[in-house]
Amino acid sequence: MINFTWYNPTKIIFGKNTHNEVGNETKKYAKKVLLHYGGKSLKATGTYDAVVNSLKNEGVDFVELGGVRPNPRLSLVQEGIEICRREGIEFILAVGGGSVIDSAKAIAAGVPYEGNVWDFYSTEKQPEKMLSIGVVLTIPAAGSESSDGSVITNEEGPDKRSCCTDLMYPKFAILNPELCYTLPVNHISAGGADILAHIMERYFAPNSNTDLSDRLSEAAMKALIYNLPKVLKDNKDYDAWAEVMWTGCVAHNGLLGRGRQEDWASHGIEHELSAIYDIAHGAGLAIIFPAWMKYVNDAHPERFVQFAQRVFDVDTQGKTEDEVINEGIEKLEAFFKGLGLATTLHEAGIDDKSFEVMAQKAAGNWTLGSIKKLTAKDIVSIYKKAL
Amino acid sequence: MINFTWYNPTKIIFGKNTHNEVGNETKKYAKKVLLHYGGKSLKATGTYDAVVNSLKNEGVDFVELGGVRPNPRLSLVQEGIEICRREGIEFILAVGGGSVIDSAKAIAAGVPYEGNVWDFYSTEKQPEKMLSIGVVLTIPAAGSESSDGSVITNEEGPDKRSCCTDLMYPKFAILNPELCYTLPVNHISAGGADILAHIMERYFAPNSNTDLSDRLSEAAMKALIYNLPKVLKDNKDYDAWAEVMWTGCVAHNGLLGRGRQEDWASHGIEHELSAIYDIAHGAGLAIIFPAWMKYVNDAHPERFVQFAQRVFDVDTQGKTEDEVINEGIEKLEAFFKGLGLATTLHEAGIDDKSFEVMAQKAAGNWTLGSIKKLTAKDIVSIYKKAL
Repeated sequence: MINFTWYNPTKIIFGKNTHNEVGNETKKYAKKVLLHYGGKSLKATGTYDAVVNSLKNEGVDFVELGGVRPNPRLSLVQEGIEICRREGIEFILAVGGGSVIDSAKAIAAGVPYEGNVWDFYSTEKQPEKMLSIGVVLTIPAAGSESSDGSVITNEEGPDKRSCCTDLMYPKFAILNPELCYTLPVNHISAGGADILAHIMERYFAPNSNTDLSDRLSEAAMKALIYNLPKVLKDNKDYDAWAEVMWTGCVAHNGLLGRGRQEDWASHGIEHELSAIYDIAHGAGLAIIFPAWMKYVNDAHPERFVQFAQRVFDVDTQGKTEDEVINEGIEKLEAFFKGLGLATTLHEAGIDDKSFEVMAQKAAGNWTLGSIKKLTAKDIVSIYKKAL
Repeated sequence: MINFTWYNPTKIIFGKNTHNEVGNETKKYAKKVLLHYGGKSLKATGTYDAVVNSLKNEGVDFVELGGVRPNPRLSLVQEGIEICRREGIEFILAVGGGSVIDSAKAIAAGVPYEGNVWDFYSTEKQPEKMLSIGVVLTIPAAGSESSDGSVITNEEGPDKRSCCTDLMYPKFAILNPELCYTLPVNHISAGGADILAHIMERYFAPNSNTDLSDRLSEAAMKALIYNLPKVLKDNKDYDAWAEVMWTGCVAHNGLLGRGRQEDWASHGIEHELSAIYDIAHGAGLAIIFPAWMKYVNDAHPERFVQFAQRVFDVDTQGKTEDEVINEGIEKLEAFFKGLGLATTLHEAGIDDKSFEVMAQKAAGNWTLGSIKKLTAKDIVSIYKKAL
């Protein structure tokens, strides 16, 4: 186990009807907020009205900025920054999934900063202060509701980059599984793949003697793999949704990686796909992760054997190490397919013509990952394995 | 899964040499602190010198109050309150195990309060403000380093009571597994039993559909059961100590109970033993918990079957439910015995003469527990099962 710090001050408010508490929580921080959200579905489902009523009932004034899209754009972030400055707003309420929350975090970082907020995503520069944010989560996936990170896409490029700082933890995040009932199937599947990937990025590490973190990670993967198919079968299964939503939060709140050098190469490799092809992040991960596993497992085969055994119950009797590892990867691919996700680039309509460009962007003069350090050349090989 | 909140703002700094960071962390909060600790062992091991040097190097002044004993006393708390008031101290640095930390929390609650700090432990009254505290942990056991609670013994009685509030979370807790190398065997065993009990109090609940919390709890129990015997064999096994110390923290930071009605009857029943017989809390739990399990398992047998299967790998083939449950309890008792702990009151030199008094104190006009509501009469039966 390597030395670590663990810090996560976000207050999680979880359960039925909890989104009606948003006004009460928000008023602890501000009397006027930016209400930030995505598209029409928030209004169609009634969540928008419930949130607005709760704010009004508690005397919280708000200015609205909707229109966040998946792979959230820098241009909308800059619009949000202008609104907050003009209106003297000091708190941002994000109502939506990871894209809305990440966009809110970027706005919060940009308002008190004199330069271009993109500096925090494209250079080593870190925010010294930020506005506070609160969250009403509607899509279990990105884990941004209690993470220290934000990922933004700069349309000029296009480039998809992240920024992480303790200042980004939301003050509170409200998680009501009932708000997931109306999610479209592709959001559920891609979100589920994202959650699983967040755990796997932390799990496949070069470190040994990480027994508790291993077992906690396996516990979270087991809970997700068991419950995600249940919500696809019955989108009003509260108990299964509660497991998926809570697992999505724990998967990315930092706990599961303690004591390990987390990997995150698959995320870097996928971000380039999303930036160019605008594929949903989770859908991209379902393609990239198995290809990455096939390419890197020889660096630490014992971890991939443990994954196969403990997460997918692969019976090792009479099998070689490679057979066990491959069976684990096959079961992961089968799980993704069962969610209706593509597991090859071909199925997603992506060919090989941008492999070199994407690999250069992902690891031009540096390397990605920790279980195996990947150069741009390695990354091209992984894209090829994913074809 | 029932509605819940999850909030834990304590910053954990974990790993080798980290206790030398205490001055740097402390100076973020105060220039003068109360340095609170237990007995001579802190000086003999060199930890005292290392902490004092770190404080001095960072220009942090301090006043000392040592002498905390297991089952920390109200009288010492009151002495600490007087010192802080007299010296104008606004931050308490606890260097020790759960007793020192709990004593520090009580002092922190008492300083700004005009009444008797025992009010917070003996009535419904809650602190409205508190001093901040920081921790250097030397004994993995109580989990008080990142919990919201404190347990104090009032010698007039004697009464052992707890107080819980969000204000009690330490600002930081430094966990260096190397500081555990010099722990006496009885501290290791009793501490281990306390850690396991903290998980079991959360695990044995009447709720169904708590899949993630179940699996996370089982993961933590597995990690502890595997690693605790290793540190008893080799008290300088860093990797095993790291697992035990990190498990002790996660066991009691609140996470593992989310979505369930936690039970805590065994703690209540044990507190009366400690108050009268001054037995170490963890040693008392090793006696009470198996007796409690035997008495209450018929209320929710499915949870006790799951415990036997998933935590102690009991093979269920060809066995009745009762046989599986009993085998799980036997394996738990064998685990405690393997740590060198007594699993009956008789072995601990305690007879039946105070059963009625203790039961009345534990549940005079109310009930204890959630998986089965226990009256004073039930508690006498549990003490009898523990004889």
